[in-house]
Amino acid sequence: MVKNKNKVLIICSKGTLDMAIPPFIITTTAAAMGMETHLYFTFWGMDIITKKKCGNLKITPIGNPSLPIPNIVGALPGMTAMATKMMKKKIKKNKIPSIQEFIKMAKDAGVKFHACTPTMNLMGITKDDLISEVDDIIGAATFVDLAKNATITLFI
Amino acid sequence: MVKNKNKVLIICSKGTLDMAIPPFIITTTAAAMGMETHLYFTFWGMDIITKKKCGNLKITPIGNPSLPIPNIVGALPGMTAMATKMMKKKIKKNKIPSIQEFIKMAKDAGVKFHACTPTMNLMGITKDDLISEVDDIIGAATFVDLAKNATITLFI
Amino acid sequence: MVKNKNKVLIICSKGTLDMAIPPFIITTTAAAMGMETHLYFTFWGMDIITKKKCGNLKITPIGNPSLPIPNIVGALPGMTAMATKMMKKKIKKNKIPSIQEFIKMAKDAGVKFHACTPTMNLMGITKDDLISEVDDIIGAATFVDLAKNATITLFI
Repeated sequence: MVKNKNKVLIICSKGTLDMAIPPFIITTTAAAMGMETHLYFTFWGMDIITKKKCGNLKITPIGNPSLPIPNIVGALPGMTAMATKMMKKKIKKNKIPSIQEFIKMAKDAGVKFHACTPTMNLMGITKDDLISEVDDIIGAATFVDLAKNATITLFI
Repeated sequence: MVKNKNKVLIICSKGTLDMAIPPFIITTTAAAMGMETHLYFTFWGMDIITKKKCGNLKITPIGNPSLPIPNIVGALPGMTAMATKMMKKKIKKNKIPSIQEFIKMAKDAGVKFHACTPTMNLMGITKDDLISEVDDIIGAATFVDLAKNATITLFI
Repeated sequence: MVKNKNKVLIICSKGTLDMAIPPFIITTTAAAMGMETHLYFTFWGMDIITKKKCGNLKITPIGNPSLPIPNIVGALPGMTAMATKMMKKKIKKNKIPSIQEFIKMAKDAGVKFHACTPTMNLMGITKDDLISEVDDIIGAATFVDLAKNATITLFI
């Protein structure tokens, strides 16, 4: 009953660009190191594997004191787009892949993509809404089975 | 010195309706699968076990680009209530339990509820403010002991 | 191939005062209990180890329904400072250390501080911007190695 040292499971629960990047960096790195890797998309994280949204993830310019933007300004129309544009520029300049590139890299490296059944029901998302890279749609029991056999399990 | 394959510990640190649901789905499922399950409530997550708040958790309509609401609109009075109402309607339609129902289900399934001592001091919360389902109030050392013996430990 | 029962790794991804406190409480406690402890700072969490920012972490007054502040009020100029001031007052009253005090306590207890290479590149942060308590700057592969040998790994 020893845990498998080679399994990584990252739960992606946020739909923002900043919180979508760490799951891909960790799993593509772990896969390159020979580990079995899984991404479980749930709640707002479903945006990352939704056809109409994955290419358009955003940074929120408000409620994050780490950004140099006062909330009264961040709430103005156009500021989400501007903060996102600035972040994407930095991402590109640093040769960090875009989310679509990360999705392709992860699949090529053997990372498994799992969508969350309860979230799909709740949000009214159908299988046709999802990108083709998704391996399966699984419920809570299958998720718990995955998690209890993983060495690294992070909720992001 | 092998980890117990049957222990799940979820740390609930957020007081929003969306982030309160995953801990209950995971622990009630794991409990039904025969695992020992623990919920540790800390920081804003204390709202989930506070009498006056647990029935009234909310969705925030701003700072979440996954919602189709511009921040300038989401910041208006009444929008938190409206976003919450819409989410609750979806939750009910999909036969997902309410938080109060989840609390009862979790207790019936044997999930242990732990409140965080430092947070209670910090927020001025007393034992009388908590719902009766809370099993105990524990500090950081007891928490670390719980976590180091758990197979699945998630910070939500 | 059994996991080391004595290693704790906390990933700090947020730059807010409320989410900066739990990593320090957990690691200083675990260190006092004789465990090997690591803090990995990434994304907005880099603020916690950035000279010009670590003494000035803030609470966001908007997008958090746990606070008794309507978003339309929380978005006003000065409200971030006011919410932060109120929280700091409570922290001091309860004899919870400040972030600078926590940094010193953690180092004294032997907690290792790791900065994230990809984030530093992305945000344009240099080694000179970091507090002297940082032990090293490590990339994703070293991070995965740390995580796979840790008993408790939390993404905060």
